[in-house]
Amino acid sequence: MKKLNVGLIGYGFMGRTHSNAFRKVNNFFDLPYQPVLRAICARDENNARAFAKKWGYESVEMDWRKLIQREDIDLIDIATPNNTHAEIAIAAARAGKMILCEKPLSMDGKQGEKMVKEIEKAGVPNMVWYNYRRVPAVTLAKQLIDEGRLGRIFHYRAKFLQDWTISKDLPQGGTALWRLDLKAAGSGVTGDLLAHCIDTAIWLNGGIGSVTAMTETFIKERKHNLTGKVEKVGIDDACAFLARFKNGSLATFESTRYARGHKALYTFEINGENASIAWDLHDLHRLQYFDHRDEGKLRGWRSIHITDSDHPYMKNWWVPGLQIGYEHTFIHQVADFLTGLDAKKPAHPDFRDALETQYVCDAVLKSARTGKWEKVPKVK
Amino acid sequence: MKKLNVGLIGYGFMGRTHSNAFRKVNNFFDLPYQPVLRAICARDENNARAFAKKWGYESVEMDWRKLIQREDIDLIDIATPNNTHAEIAIAAARAGKMILCEKPLSMDGKQGEKMVKEIEKAGVPNMVWYNYRRVPAVTLAKQLIDEGRLGRIFHYRAKFLQDWTISKDLPQGGTALWRLDLKAAGSGVTGDLLAHCIDTAIWLNGGIGSVTAMTETFIKERKHNLTGKVEKVGIDDACAFLARFKNGSLATFESTRYARGHKALYTFEINGENASIAWDLHDLHRLQYFDHRDEGKLRGWRSIHITDSDHPYMKNWWVPGLQIGYEHTFIHQVADFLTGLDAKKPAHPDFRDALETQYVCDAVLKSARTGKWEKVPKVK
Amino acid sequence: MKKLNVGLIGYGFMGRTHSNAFRKVNNFFDLPYQPVLRAICARDENNARAFAKKWGYESVEMDWRKLIQREDIDLIDIATPNNTHAEIAIAAARAGKMILCEKPLSMDGKQGEKMVKEIEKAGVPNMVWYNYRRVPAVTLAKQLIDEGRLGRIFHYRAKFLQDWTISKDLPQGGTALWRLDLKAAGSGVTGDLLAHCIDTAIWLNGGIGSVTAMTETFIKERKHNLTGKVEKVGIDDACAFLARFKNGSLATFESTRYARGHKALYTFEINGENASIAWDLHDLHRLQYFDHRDEGKLRGWRSIHITDSDHPYMKNWWVPGLQIGYEHTFIHQVADFLTGLDAKKPAHPDFRDALETQYVCDAVLKSARTGKWEKVPKVK
Amino acid sequence: MKKLNVGLIGYGFMGRTHSNAFRKVNNFFDLPYQPVLRAICARDENNARAFAKKWGYESVEMDWRKLIQREDIDLIDIATPNNTHAEIAIAAARAGKMILCEKPLSMDGKQGEKMVKEIEKAGVPNMVWYNYRRVPAVTLAKQLIDEGRLGRIFHYRAKFLQDWTISKDLPQGGTALWRLDLKAAGSGVTGDLLAHCIDTAIWLNGGIGSVTAMTETFIKERKHNLTGKVEKVGIDDACAFLARFKNGSLATFESTRYARGHKALYTFEINGENASIAWDLHDLHRLQYFDHRDEGKLRGWRSIHITDSDHPYMKNWWVPGLQIGYEHTFIHQVADFLTGLDAKKPAHPDFRDALETQYVCDAVLKSARTGKWEKVPKVK
Repeated sequence: MKKLNVGLIGYGFMGRTHSNAFRKVNNFFDLPYQPVLRAICARDENNARAFAKKWGYESVEMDWRKLIQREDIDLIDIATPNNTHAEIAIAAARAGKMILCEKPLSMDGKQGEKMVKEIEKAGVPNMVWYNYRRVPAVTLAKQLIDEGRLGRIFHYRAKFLQDWTISKDLPQGGTALWRLDLKAAGSGVTGDLLAHCIDTAIWLNGGIGSVTAMTETFIKERKHNLTGKVEKVGIDDACAFLARFKNGSLATFESTRYARGHKALYTFEINGENASIAWDLHDLHRLQYFDHRDEGKLRGWRSIHITDSDHPYMKNWWVPGLQIGYEHTFIHQVADFLTGLDAKKPAHPDFRDALETQYVCDAVLKSARTGKWEKVPKVK
Repeated sequence: MKKLNVGLIGYGFMGRTHSNAFRKVNNFFDLPYQPVLRAICARDENNARAFAKKWGYESVEMDWRKLIQREDIDLIDIATPNNTHAEIAIAAARAGKMILCEKPLSMDGKQGEKMVKEIEKAGVPNMVWYNYRRVPAVTLAKQLIDEGRLGRIFHYRAKFLQDWTISKDLPQGGTALWRLDLKAAGSGVTGDLLAHCIDTAIWLNGGIGSVTAMTETFIKERKHNLTGKVEKVGIDDACAFLARFKNGSLATFESTRYARGHKALYTFEINGENASIAWDLHDLHRLQYFDHRDEGKLRGWRSIHITDSDHPYMKNWWVPGLQIGYEHTFIHQVADFLTGLDAKKPAHPDFRDALETQYVCDAVLKSARTGKWEKVPKVK
Repeated sequence: MKKLNVGLIGYGFMGRTHSNAFRKVNNFFDLPYQPVLRAICARDENNARAFAKKWGYESVEMDWRKLIQREDIDLIDIATPNNTHAEIAIAAARAGKMILCEKPLSMDGKQGEKMVKEIEKAGVPNMVWYNYRRVPAVTLAKQLIDEGRLGRIFHYRAKFLQDWTISKDLPQGGTALWRLDLKAAGSGVTGDLLAHCIDTAIWLNGGIGSVTAMTETFIKERKHNLTGKVEKVGIDDACAFLARFKNGSLATFESTRYARGHKALYTFEINGENASIAWDLHDLHRLQYFDHRDEGKLRGWRSIHITDSDHPYMKNWWVPGLQIGYEHTFIHQVADFLTGLDAKKPAHPDFRDALETQYVCDAVLKSARTGKWEKVPKVK
Repeated sequence: MKKLNVGLIGYGFMGRTHSNAFRKVNNFFDLPYQPVLRAICARDENNARAFAKKWGYESVEMDWRKLIQREDIDLIDIATPNNTHAEIAIAAARAGKMILCEKPLSMDGKQGEKMVKEIEKAGVPNMVWYNYRRVPAVTLAKQLIDEGRLGRIFHYRAKFLQDWTISKDLPQGGTALWRLDLKAAGSGVTGDLLAHCIDTAIWLNGGIGSVTAMTETFIKERKHNLTGKVEKVGIDDACAFLARFKNGSLATFESTRYARGHKALYTFEINGENASIAWDLHDLHRLQYFDHRDEGKLRGWRSIHITDSDHPYMKNWWVPGLQIGYEHTFIHQVADFLTGLDAKKPAHPDFRDALETQYVCDAVLKSARTGKWEKVPKVK
């Protein structure tokens, strides 16, 4: 088994999910590579050391530029705020490192284009952490669509609902709250949550042609948690848009952090001529499936418990009836990345795929400003 | 359309469900007969008159013996407490009237035997109001079993859970509370609720061979609502039993009025070699169905929304997606009774069927006393 | 009890739901009025006679103008295709009759304005059959909102999904299929289904300020069931729109007849600062409720089984645990109409309320053509 | 952080769940000890080596007696078939090792008594892997009961339903199928599945006083997968029993491997005077809770999504809305064991607790033979 030397940048929530994936993947999957946790890089040395100890990283760096130059590192994993992705990724590519990058790819499409250009010029393996593609139920949905079981698609609808920013007393700002800071995040729910919905949607249903959108910032001012000053809130608290897919189907998308009662309720539903599919993240181990070709009096939505060995990824886990959870999606993504690396069949979504999602986000935000339908440009 | 002249005895909860059924059935079903509400009979004249006015009964009687003798009455509908069924039914049979009788048939099997003997001697059409057979989802379950879709049956489980007698302050006694009075009811949940479960079970899965049971009275004494005295509670508050069906399948049955959070949660599930079925009264318009013969990765419990025209009884109601409720089961039962009357193919359950249920109840109550397995005698 | 003499025009699906309501309402509600089924009016005499027999109408008319002139008629109930509502309603108002009118009120806002003007000039009691307001769960939602339990509202989302027109072989046209005929229906799902969603939304959440919409006709041509010719389909098969309510909340609305697996899935969800509510028509006897003020570790969506006597309308029906169905919404509406009539507190929605819904439909259809946000005019 | 040197015996399904727990626990919990995977012991050397490589065990043993004698081992983890637990555990205790033992503890109560005696004499820390106590939803249920929220308990019901042995062609026998071999397993579903239900039940609701049971072996003969001969099946395919808890509540328990459509459907429900709780393993991250003290019209079963930081164990995992799965229960158990070890407050269930469960199993199997109620002896 070949070693793959990983250098992780960032130790936040995503740093944990990635580290867990690297550590666990070989216990459950037979793979040509074994990730080795060489170094964790972060500005705060104490925190970085504590993280390294907890997860078994062999060394600590405080300057990502240094990390990138290290010869004992094969792969740079970017788990930092959105406004740092481009600089790091481009530098890592130029240094010839493989790159795994957190989503969304970039602050906007323009920046993303540069990243794609550099990464492709460097020819380094790359992937973006749109992890929900690897929920087994979602992967099964993809299989069913690819097998043509749904027939012509009429409708797609997706939502990502949270409720963690309803309180007026919640500050915006740095560290754990950078997602509320326009400069660090680039946008609010659009890049944070809708980007997931869009990535899945394009994967399952093809490209999006045009959109019309609205955004809203319900709490207009918040105290900044670093400066202590009350400042205008720049991000979108909520965003909804209508879309037309290139295959002629209609879509509604919505995301918010003001939907009381929902913590991370990512849901989608696809209605085809012959069958429909629905899924939600709060019960991620189930897929809802309706098949019109079932005998008339016995037609019904099937609640498929995705724990059988013939479900995607599941033969590597436990036995039928025993569910897996959120963190497993990252493990699956690493497994696929490593398999693809060896087979020279790169896993997706790569930077190019993620750029398409970025374009949709841009069109959504633009439409929210113009009040008009906006076309989504093609990725060249 | 022939007229069928109805004389109803009792104007309580069941008097309402039956009256509604008689009044509505011809609006929705094409039938050879039309019930005519000739008379309501009850001891309290004022209440009887008010009920007659509300439901359109043409006349009022205060003595059921007089009602039975009236020549303008074809059918006697017994909706009185359990301890009165036998006397009324036998008298009505001797007077040559058709009889619809509330469940349970009788106070015990012995009394039930006499009723069956007299009714069959008189040769009058008869039926017992075990209405849950006519929930469309339950009728569909019966169809699926009769079509052999489940294969060999391994398990049957049924429950009927309520929570309305948990308060110690609830009195026992007469009128609305006769169900808590041993003399009027014969037993507690066994005759009131488990009798429903047993009737459905025998219908779906055949005869029960033997049982072992336990009963409990959680609140031992209650004030009597008529005498005002604190008296010992005679009925069973809860009853559970294990059973072996004659077809070799195993069963668990349970009923209680002490299951906080459940109002009328009648549920059953049947597990067969090839398929399983589950149903519950709180969402009575759905049937849960699992078929092992479905393609492996797409197997799942189907939640069948029983509102399509190819579901039992449903083409007579609204359009797909629009549900019916509790009261419709009585309408279906009247429709089937009238159809069977004309076709000389009596609808079920008749008195003889209900006697079998009575025998099971007797065996259950006996086992609760003896602590042993008790055999269920055959209906001769 | 006063008699209220009803003349019904139209014997289709809605003719049945209304007739059932008139016939049953006094069995379950204590009311100052009793509807009397004086006459049914329809062009096809045989069908009208059969309907009259089935439902107990005393007489049959074939010309609605004659019906309106009959002195023994107090109330005209309009259950005919949309393109006939205005003419009949205006004539009935001029003849001094009370009017119940099927929804949507009119072919468009302009026509609706005339109707409102005439009806209000005549001063006759009037109501529009937006029946879903009277699903007990929906009425409870209204109570909760009026009691201020949700706090500031952030989001409203509603869908009405069906799947009955997916087949290309389904004809468009007259009689049972008039809903697919632009001339008879005025629009497709917008007037037929979204109108329901809009009526409920305005009732629960106040006025809608502006909208942006898209519509689609998936099957462009269909055979006409009367002419036999293949003709262009004029109606919208699907429609989705974004909206901003006047109270600052955001909304998504969607309707289609191409959502495989859904028959009449009307759903809505409202997210407030403190609590959220969700409901769907396929389990209409339940209300989903989440209250953030519940103790932290015990917060969860409550599935409230709307069968208790303290739930709206339910003390008039059966006992806790026993559900009612679709048809009961019409009975409740008649009960409220009759109660309001006597108390001089008119029940809603009246024609004026329905006009506001019409304006929203107009703005939606206009936006679908212009691709822009359209404002909803005020009802003057 | 102190090292705790683990020697695992057995590399089957449970060997994997335990290994994963040992490896992961320190990534997520701050603990005084760190398990070190010193050795894996199994008869098949090749398989043992492969397992060691996959999970990072430092060495391999083929004789468990040798493993027990190794000085570099602190803790023996027994993950072998039931008929080997006693001998290994007793030897390990005598060698002064801590012991983690798979459930059920022993082949029967008598054997279990000896184990408890020896282990307690040796004074070694010990625990039995009844992992379901550490599903966060189940732990929350325990908290709620201990806080007195349910009031007097009336009912307990538990089921564990599977469907993997329905096929007649499935062999019985050794290795992966030892659970079907009476000599290796001691019993069928009673020890394998009901033991889990009983352990949880005693934990949540106190001791069980007496039981009446039935068992069944649906497929009487099966080919042995090692000998190739058709042999009589000795185990119970299904078992159901009624029970009376010492606190006066009534219970039903059922387990089977013949419930088509259920893979590992462990469910329980508890009904108390004031509140009820329900849970099932197929959606293990949810707890159903009904509280009668909620305001009347808003009472409903709450579906609590157990992902918040104030839910047991959950602050150590991800963020609200993101679920964990089956394997995490073992991690929690190791975390609690290590914490208790340091604090001298032993985690439960220990061998003594597990013996009580064994006594119930014995009484159940005895009652199934005698047809009578059997008392459960006290653990001395």
